[in-house]
Amino acid sequence: MVDHAIFYIGQSCLLKRTVTAEEVETFARATGDVNPVHLDEAYAAKTRFKRRIAHGMLIASFISGLLGTKFPGPGTIYMSQSLKFLRPVFLGDEVTVSAAVIAWRPERSILTLETMVHNQRGEKVLSGEAVCLVEDVLAEGDMRASA
Amino acid sequence: MVDHAIFYIGQSCLLKRTVTAEEVETFARATGDVNPVHLDEAYAAKTRFKRRIAHGMLIASFISGLLGTKFPGPGTIYMSQSLKFLRPVFLGDEVTVSAAVIAWRPERSILTLETMVHNQRGEKVLSGEAVCLVEDVLAEGDMRASA
Repeated sequence: MVDHAIFYIGQSCLLKRTVTAEEVETFARATGDVNPVHLDEAYAAKTRFKRRIAHGMLIASFISGLLGTKFPGPGTIYMSQSLKFLRPVFLGDEVTVSAAVIAWRPERSILTLETMVHNQRGEKVLSGEAVCLVEDVLAEGDMRASA
Repeated sequence: MVDHAIFYIGQSCLLKRTVTAEEVETFARATGDVNPVHLDEAYAAKTRFKRRIAHGMLIASFISGLLGTKFPGPGTIYMSQSLKFLRPVFLGDEVTVSAAVIAWRPERSILTLETMVHNQRGEKVLSGEAVCLVEDVLAEGDMRASA
């Protein structure tokens, strides 16, 4: 039997991460997103941000990482994610990525989470909502429980 | 003078990309998303998908790449993106990423695009909507025009 009580509204998790130039460059290579605003200091100097910014989707991927590795954890399958990019994230910024349960439907193993990212100055840089299928997370927990 | 007519409703662009194991592994490294459903064949065999799937956020990043490199092009700044992950993308799948203008507000330089990803069988794997600030794209075009 799966213990549905492992998820509840208000349950939350966070991770901190410093955004490095190497990460931005690796991300650009993996995804093909070589927009010069992320990679070219001289180009970036002429934009409204005056210096290179991290890819919004890199920061969004930290949310995916939080969900898939820490909470709900391994086996989490993404159904949807909304993303509002509120402020730029600069190289060297330390971001705090958080996810909090706002709905839980145990009969379908579907979890809805409010997802946010803040910078080291406490400013919200990204907000959104994630919907995840967690049947394999539950099965995994069940396997662990019966091992 | 900036030529606002460079954007219009229905304007679209696409790119094709084959998802490789190397890309998935590089993406996992850059983002910290090491969910075993993406990296561990034995683990993935026990999930509903039976084999490793690409990170949804990797596929979403291809949209960011299309917007930031091809259309609207370099200098594009993301304001928001919604993502519905409709089907898994497997390693080796060839995906077609497309973006089509559904709204254009020249007075604020804000472009809204419908964004979609299909696999090589013509199945839609991801859908969503992007809102972008394109003032630097326009400025760039202007600089080119007056050069």
